[in-house]
This record gives sequence, C-alpha cells and structure tokens, in this order.
Amino acid sequence: MSKINYAIGVDLGGTNLVAGLVSSNGKVLFNRKLKTEAAKGRATVIGNIEKAVLQVIEGCNSRQKYGLKGIGIGSPGLVDHRKGIVRNPPNLKGWNEVHLAKIISKKFKLPVYVGNDANVYALGEHTFGAGKGADCMVCVTLGTGMGGGLILNNELFVGSFQTAGELGHVIVERNGKRCNCGNHGCVERYVGNSYIIERTLEKIRQGRKTSIVKIAGGLDKISPRVLSEAANSGDKLAKEIWQETGEYAGAALSSIINTLGPRKVVIGGGVSRAGRLILDPIKAEVKKRVFKYLAKRVKIVLGTLGDDAAVLGAASLVWHHLK
Amino acid sequence: MSKINYAIGVDLGGTNLVAGLVSSNGKVLFNRKLKTEAAKGRATVIGNIEKAVLQVIEGCNSRQKYGLKGIGIGSPGLVDHRKGIVRNPPNLKGWNEVHLAKIISKKFKLPVYVGNDANVYALGEHTFGAGKGADCMVCVTLGTGMGGGLILNNELFVGSFQTAGELGHVIVERNGKRCNCGNHGCVERYVGNSYIIERTLEKIRQGRKTSIVKIAGGLDKISPRVLSEAANSGDKLAKEIWQETGEYAGAALSSIINTLGPRKVVIGGGVSRAGRLILDPIKAEVKKRVFKYLAKRVKIVLGTLGDDAAVLGAASLVWHHLK
Repeated sequence: MSKINYAIGVDLGGTNLVAGLVSSNGKVLFNRKLKTEAAKGRATVIGNIEKAVLQVIEGCNSRQKYGLKGIGIGSPGLVDHRKGIVRNPPNLKGWNEVHLAKIISKKFKLPVYVGNDANVYALGEHTFGAGKGADCMVCVTLGTGMGGGLILNNELFVGSFQTAGELGHVIVERNGKRCNCGNHGCVERYVGNSYIIERTLEKIRQGRKTSIVKIAGGLDKISPRVLSEAANSGDKLAKEIWQETGEYAGAALSSIINTLGPRKVVIGGGVSRAGRLILDPIKAEVKKRVFKYLAKRVKIVLGTLGDDAAVLGAASLVWHHLK
Repeated sequence: MSKINYAIGVDLGGTNLVAGLVSSNGKVLFNRKLKTEAAKGRATVIGNIEKAVLQVIEGCNSRQKYGLKGIGIGSPGLVDHRKGIVRNPPNLKGWNEVHLAKIISKKFKLPVYVGNDANVYALGEHTFGAGKGADCMVCVTLGTGMGGGLILNNELFVGSFQTAGELGHVIVERNGKRCNCGNHGCVERYVGNSYIIERTLEKIRQGRKTSIVKIAGGLDKISPRVLSEAANSGDKLAKEIWQETGEYAGAALSSIINTLGPRKVVIGGGVSRAGRLILDPIKAEVKKRVFKYLAKRVKIVLGTLGDDAAVLGAASLVWHHLK
C-alpha cells in the first residue's frame, strides 16, 4: 500500500451537516457538525458547508494538509456524479440545480466530488466496511425511506441517468399500497420508518397485547428503537413486526439478488440498528426465495461503519475518482 | 472502423443447434442447422456442434477463413463466461460441468467463448440490434420462460457468480403463485408461454366468449401466435390476455428500471413477436410505475434481430472479449 493520504468527507443532511477529516486507511480523525439550516435557503447551506470544511482544514496538522487529496460530499436528491450537480433534493428547498462541486472546489482549490447519499454510503461500506473485497455488492439503507447503492465490478454503478440504486422502489406487491413515488407496492411503503410504526399501530388498535406502548411512553412515541427494545425483552408483537419487516425487505432483495448475483448484501441505515431482529428474517426470506446456487453464495450482513459511514463514504468518493 | 473480420456464432438449443458465419458489421453470411440430439448425450451433442462449425468453416472463402477471429457459443444453463464452462443446462442432461470452450478450441485452433443464451441475446441486440449505442441496457426474452441479460456501462454484466440477469425471477406478487424455481410470485410464473395459455384457458372455462379456440383449431392448440392473431382480429379476451401479460412484465421491469436506471429496455424472444400487443401495455405500465425522471428518459423497444439474434449474439461474444 502507498503512503497514507487524506480527504475531507461531508455528510449533507436535511437537519445537520458533518465534515470530517478521513485518512486513506479509513479513520475519521476528527469532525465538525453544524446545523444545515435548510430553511434559510441555498446560500446559507453552502456557507455552512464551507464553514464546516474550513474548520476541518484548520484542524489539520501540516502533514495532513499537505496530503489532502480532495473533498467528497454526500448529498440527498438526484446527483450528477460526473458533474457534481445536485438536483431537487427533497429536504433542501430551492436547490433545483446546484453545481456544488464547482462552488466548493473554487473556494478551497481542491478537487470536489459529489454523490447521492445512499450511493456514498455504499461506497463507504465497500471501501472501509462490511463490503470490503466484494466485487459486486448491493447496499440498502433502512430509515425514513429505503435507499440503495450498487457496487458492480468494484465501481459505484449509477446507470445511464445517474439514478441507479433506488431499491426502495422495487415492487413486492404489484397491487399493494400506494407509495409516495406514485407507484404501488414498493418495498419502501412497508419497511420505511413511519410504515413500520403504522403497521404496529394498526395491530395495537386491533387489540393485540403488547408492552410496546409502555416502553415507548405513549402511542405517539413508538419508534424503531422502542420496537427493538420491546422485541429484545420478549414482546411478541414487536418480534412479529420485525419479522414482517424482514420478510418485505427480503422479498425485494431476492428480486435484486436474482437480477444482479452479488457477492454481498450490506444492510445499513438507522433501522438496521435493530441488528439480528431485522437481519435474521431478511436472511431467511432470501434463502427461501433466491436460486439455491445464489442462496449458498451471497452473504447478507449488517453495515459496520455506524455513525461514521456517511463521512467515510463521502471521503471515499475522492479516492474512488482518483483511482 | 477497422477492416471487416469474421466470427462463428453457435446457438446451442435443446432441440436444434445453429452455427453461422457472422461478419463484424453484423451480417449472418450463411448458417447450418442441425438437430442437437440432446437425448444421445454429451459426446453426440459436442460432435454435432463440431460438425456444424466445420460445415460453416468449409463454406468460408479464403478471405473469410483468414479473418476468422474465433467462435462464440450461446448455451442454456449456468455458464462460467470467463472459463467457458457450461453447468447443468436444463435441456442437456448429463452436462454437469463441461469445459465447452476448451474442447471446441482444441478442435479448431481458434479462441472460443461461451455465454448463457439470454446474456448472448442481450449482447447481440446491443452490438448489432435495438440496443446499439445504449450504455446501459436491460434485455428480456419472453418465451417458455422469461430470460434476461444486462449490459452495464457497455459491458455484459454477469455478477459475482456469473448468474446475473435472471429477470424472470423478479417478484411481482410476494404471495403469488409458486414458480418452478421455488420462489413465489416471480414474473415468469405469469408471462411464460405456458402460463399465458393457462390464464387464457382459465378465462375460457369461466365462460368468456372468444374466437381464440376456433382460430387455434382446438383448446390444446392455443399458442401465443394464436393469441396474437385473435387479438389482431379484434378478439376482446385475447387483447385482455396481452394487456395483462404486459402489466405483469411491466411491473417487473419497473423494479429493474428503478434499480438500474438503464437507457434502453429491449424486449425479445418468441412471445415478443406479438409486437405492439405486448409492447404497448409494458410501456404504459412502466410509465405509470417508475420515477417520472426515468419514465421520460428510458426507451422500451422490441428487439430487431429476429431469428438471427442468437447466432449474432454468440458471435459477438468473440468481439466483446477481443475488445
């Protein structure tokens, strides 16, 4: 391996943004977190990105500064990876078409690369985490929605229109519930955060006995974290909800595994903190559904980068492009 | 463009095998068709492949012989594209693991490449047919089953285990009918040849009025060709069957389009001879289901290579590998 060098990774979220100094061997040396202030508009948000990056650069020692290869930014929305343009991110109003790479690059005189957040997460897990060494890897992030990223033949795959990886909109029931995207029966409509809770509330209303409400401290406080706690303490309904969630996700992943034949599937995102509660039913469902030849070979694992995933992934955009 | 050169393409089917002389500008100069004689076992089948190839070579003039770059073979079953090994093709009993490339290469002293038949079809349409120029292309073949091939970033994509492209086993209804593969609700279970006919017979038994049986000349003679004829002459049931078939295929393709974001989807295989009867409902369904951004951009078209597709695709394996 060559000498260690450095990159800055920026995780641009709707609420917070984090910039971190990342070494090429996958360590986040330090980071700065700021409010995104999305409501104040585009100029403020870009100003905040620059502020966070500047703080990270100022925190570098001279060896790290000298070794800075560039800045990588993970952004929500549709991202033109080649040109570094962000288009219509749902949480950043007024960002119709922002040449983010150009703007940030001008400011810091460094190469800047921008990627879609779920794609960047996949790249992070592939470069430094659970997907290391897998030539083809499918990555899903379970959270508010279900995002995805594809690493095919060791490269981030973005498709013809820079949109690839929308695994949340794989159909599990063609006449199923209507999804926000307009389609029916998308897996996201069953495994997204709010839909997990919706399913739980339905069953509670049907009179199912459960400790969930007590653990949550109220019907309106049920969250995936509460459902994990309840399931881990033996609550049957909570276990059932995780089982079902895994079955839905597993069905969608089976379609993708039969289509792409990947070596690994990496499950990340906030909801994946449920650990084996969600992983085990996903694995069981995939095993039942995909070709035996693949079922024996594909590995389905949880992401390992945790909270650092986004910043590590964003930074790895830089190394990915420099290859 | 460089000088025209030549390759031999072999389409190895369960019943017939065809070897053809193909020019690098996509013309089949001539071909030889033989019975595969699958029941007589592996040695006979290999002998027949060699016989057909020899006849094609003998038919070459000296310029073509001199310009022969190699032999490409499209085979059913699981194919190791890198090593040229055929594994367990369903229609060729006793072919557990046949080093087909090695065997044929030794015989003719030419480079030999082997690909899965659906993948080879995709490669043919990409090199010479409807998929020309599309950086990312999804190809489906509708016939007995629903096969598929993926061209991603201008390369045939086979995945980590050389299995990629099994689009027939994308789920459309997670609790749907049981598929031959063991899974439930695979699209192939609704759009495969025999299942189209099964659905037709069900509706006839329910007492639906139709000219289908008369056109077929008997309940047991209904085929996709008959259904096309009936639909084209205005039969409502036949139209409905094509509409439904397109809806099923369109739902599965929507999952794949959202996942891969391809520039083109090419529909081939025997059932695609129904033309617009199947294409129009597929297009309508995809338009309803996929992200608007993609719906506007992805082109869904019929394959253009017809009966020559398999031989052209097999030959293009040679140029694909020589690139």
